[in-house]
Amino acid sequence: VPKQPYELYYWSGIPGRGEFVRLALEDAAISYIDHARDKDADEKLMRFMRKPDLDHPPFAPPFLRTDQSLIGQTATILFYLGARYGLAPKDEEGRLWVHQLQLTIADLVAEAHDVHHPISAGLYYKDQKEEALKRAKAFREERIPKFLAYFERVLEEPLEPEEGHKKRSDKGKRRVLPKKNRWLAGQAFSYADLSLFHTLAGLHYAFPTTMAKLAPQSLRVKNLSMRVAARPRIKAYLSSARHLAFNEDGIFRHYAELDG
Amino acid sequence: VPKQPYELYYWSGIPGRGEFVRLALEDAAISYIDHARDKDADEKLMRFMRKPDLDHPPFAPPFLRTDQSLIGQTATILFYLGARYGLAPKDEEGRLWVHQLQLTIADLVAEAHDVHHPISAGLYYKDQKEEALKRAKAFREERIPKFLAYFERVLEEPLEPEEGHKKRSDKGKRRVLPKKNRWLAGQAFSYADLSLFHTLAGLHYAFPTTMAKLAPQSLRVKNLSMRVAARPRIKAYLSSARHLAFNEDGIFRHYAELDG
Repeated sequence: VPKQPYELYYWSGIPGRGEFVRLALEDAAISYIDHARDKDADEKLMRFMRKPDLDHPPFAPPFLRTDQSLIGQTATILFYLGARYGLAPKDEEGRLWVHQLQLTIADLVAEAHDVHHPISAGLYYKDQKEEALKRAKAFREERIPKFLAYFERVLEEPLEPEEGHKKRSDKGKRRVLPKKNRWLAGQAFSYADLSLFHTLAGLHYAFPTTMAKLAPQSLRVKNLSMRVAARPRIKAYLSSARHLAFNEDGIFRHYAELDG
Repeated sequence: VPKQPYELYYWSGIPGRGEFVRLALEDAAISYIDHARDKDADEKLMRFMRKPDLDHPPFAPPFLRTDQSLIGQTATILFYLGARYGLAPKDEEGRLWVHQLQLTIADLVAEAHDVHHPISAGLYYKDQKEEALKRAKAFREERIPKFLAYFERVLEEPLEPEEGHKKRSDKGKRRVLPKKNRWLAGQAFSYADLSLFHTLAGLHYAFPTTMAKLAPQSLRVKNLSMRVAARPRIKAYLSSARHLAFNEDGIFRHYAELDG
């Protein structure tokens, strides 16, 4: 338990990659200060990153300040939190598996961003729209289906009797949860489930037509998302003022022409 | 120590992301089987990935098979190896810092790939060359300088007296290594140094003119790369038949027109 609340630094005005960290903090009921909500948040963020005395300067936000250190890269922050707050399996194999899933989600998120910025993040969308139309076609037709098929496959794997996640009934028999309650790492709920939920929400926001077409092929992923959304702390967070909606400054943007 | 040698799965014919894992295995003198060198390696790889009984199916290669498990995502494999074979600091903070650096290197590597494939990995370069010319300009002018400046900054940080990395001289005073011998994580050599070395080599291969221009701004990174190349096991590996040169099927490709 930290002596001071964690401090989250991220750009203001968008859910962005900061949202993956927020969902973990909220689901685990961890106390934190969200500096993205400060006055002049972006200026403060940039000033902080330029500080010459940072031991471990981050390349980009989000980053998390703890009592002891400064942690950058979304997946690294989640790895840190997951181990401490029950958002990852306890055993090394399980923790690495959840982390591997998180990195695959991160790849999907980066691709979702590059759909509307295929040439440069330094140019406006309108200045790379022609290229975006082409990249969006490939993303809709090849990449989204490939990622969804992967997570469907993960969710259909048989439950493994991992150490630390075995549950035995009163009669001493192993109790195996029904598959419909399966998380990405089996019985162990993890930050990867939160991240997949948010990524799916982003894809539905940005590509509603595409995602509607793909619904029959992604029933398990949808079921997982619904169960995440129904978790009491996530539900409370999503309807709170702390939560920002998707918009056209963020990673997931709805431009109808890119949805095909 | 594993009972069986590790087995590395990756595409044949290119260094690719598999090379980051190879460099760690080679530097730590870990015994491994490189299935990318098998006959019909790519077919075997795809057949393996489709096996229905995989507990933890990887999304893409590289992946590493151990006695106990299958680990995918380059950065996750390195996290696993780093902890076991002295390629990462022992303390949690140091391990997460090295991992954070690795993920930033991975972002740079992904961008280096997308320069020649800005629309789709499913299309040939010649079919997205116009867009590649535009993306290359942004990569050369904005992104490479930004990443290099970041790693230069990391290398100029003062050494921290991290637990587990303190060294004291006979007289009980803390011995601080001179800055020219600094690694990304200070005194602790790590897989992130190996990865930065390989990434720099790739950028020099793909963008020789650009990198020559940037040389005066990246002296520390260059110095680090030279020290990595001079490590006996890395030197032996690079001149062995196990090592594959860069080529125009891989991540780092030399197309003169993209070098500006």
